[in-house]
Amino acid sequence: MSDIKDFEVNSVNNSAKPLGEQISERIIQLIIENDWKAGDKLPNEYELADKLDVGRSTIREAIKALVSRNILEIRRGAGTFISEKGGVADDPLGLTFVKDKYKLALDLLEVRFMIEPSIASIAAVKATNEEIEKMSSLCDEIDELILKKQPYLEKDIEFHAAIAKSSKNLVVGNLIPIINRSIAIFIDITNQKLRTETMETHREILNAIKNHDANGARDAMFLHLVYNRRNIKTIIGKEITS
Amino acid sequence: MSDIKDFEVNSVNNSAKPLGEQISERIIQLIIENDWKAGDKLPNEYELADKLDVGRSTIREAIKALVSRNILEIRRGAGTFISEKGGVADDPLGLTFVKDKYKLALDLLEVRFMIEPSIASIAAVKATNEEIEKMSSLCDEIDELILKKQPYLEKDIEFHAAIAKSSKNLVVGNLIPIINRSIAIFIDITNQKLRTETMETHREILNAIKNHDANGARDAMFLHLVYNRRNIKTIIGKEITS
Repeated sequence: MSDIKDFEVNSVNNSAKPLGEQISERIIQLIIENDWKAGDKLPNEYELADKLDVGRSTIREAIKALVSRNILEIRRGAGTFISEKGGVADDPLGLTFVKDKYKLALDLLEVRFMIEPSIASIAAVKATNEEIEKMSSLCDEIDELILKKQPYLEKDIEFHAAIAKSSKNLVVGNLIPIINRSIAIFIDITNQKLRTETMETHREILNAIKNHDANGARDAMFLHLVYNRRNIKTIIGKEITS
Repeated sequence: MSDIKDFEVNSVNNSAKPLGEQISERIIQLIIENDWKAGDKLPNEYELADKLDVGRSTIREAIKALVSRNILEIRRGAGTFISEKGGVADDPLGLTFVKDKYKLALDLLEVRFMIEPSIASIAAVKATNEEIEKMSSLCDEIDELILKKQPYLEKDIEFHAAIAKSSKNLVVGNLIPIINRSIAIFIDITNQKLRTETMETHREILNAIKNHDANGARDAMFLHLVYNRRNIKTIIGKEITS
């Protein structure tokens, strides 16, 4: 009854699409096949036009579309490069139209509660020594910034992204930074009071992952998120009553 | 679906950004302030140029950028409308560059395991009667399609989206359809063998939400996802051994 024909992995069937889109997809193919990474330079217009057998104006159109998808970036005078944004959209979850930014911040955090403790426990099982070293140095850098009372948001997002990535789940590695950055857009947590709690719970998460203690990593992440939620609620409370 | 006559603009301090981007953001402001919904028609170029005090070519540039962000859509001969896609990007999570599509499908499902059981239990507490009726009729439609051996993927995604939306979490209402649609891109589950299990577990989820039984809804969703994971693994196993 069920045999090989029961499924198919959808292949790219381009024939119905406009030429510009077809060429965009062929450039994506090129990036994948050649394993070009963020920061690598794309061949110039002439080479691409020659390689893909279309005019330069079509190449330009395709490149423009890929820039708007954050797959490529143009550096004036230098050429076209693979974007550091890795094709992740500027507002991937379509949150532009949400009016209640406070509720949105808490809802984003609720999603972190659903994902990050599980992810931390998977990381405790799957993180390599190299990945743990990376987390460890990020943890040190955050502590240093906090002690110097400097902004540590970027490093904080990197720390959580490193944990997500070490879980080896291909989706959460992209999803967690999107969520954490979205929270930062709506709530300024750089001046939060949680400096000590942040340092301590980060360290607890790191140590549990280091010790391959899955439950310990899950618990420490929960604790970290609970502090975060209380902090956001305090910030919101102040804002509303002020 | 009505034409929009009255709209208003608050000035935004954008001075550092290129004019086209500033105008894009002011159009987004207009959409939010006037509460224009998907399918509503945008005022024409002349009106917008007049209202925002810029040339028509700037308006056209801004509209083009918003079309590429899936915020607006142009219907030839009819005008520019608020897109049904609600600003959610075509590949929001930047999965274009993942090479191993089978692992990706399983990783996407792993994220569903993290989110959907919690969401189902929240839905059991928060879903309104109207929302439950909507889920119920989607459940009926899916059964009908399955029994007729017709494709039911779209309705399936709608059913899970309706549950996610009824949780009132502003993020998961957008996130769950993104994840489910991504899985469908990589694995064609429309011909799956799980017809009976799909009908039964959908019905269980629905009944638990109807009875405001939070744990029941969580359990039924887990069961549903377990069947899904086994099905995808079977599909993948066949592909790899064939």
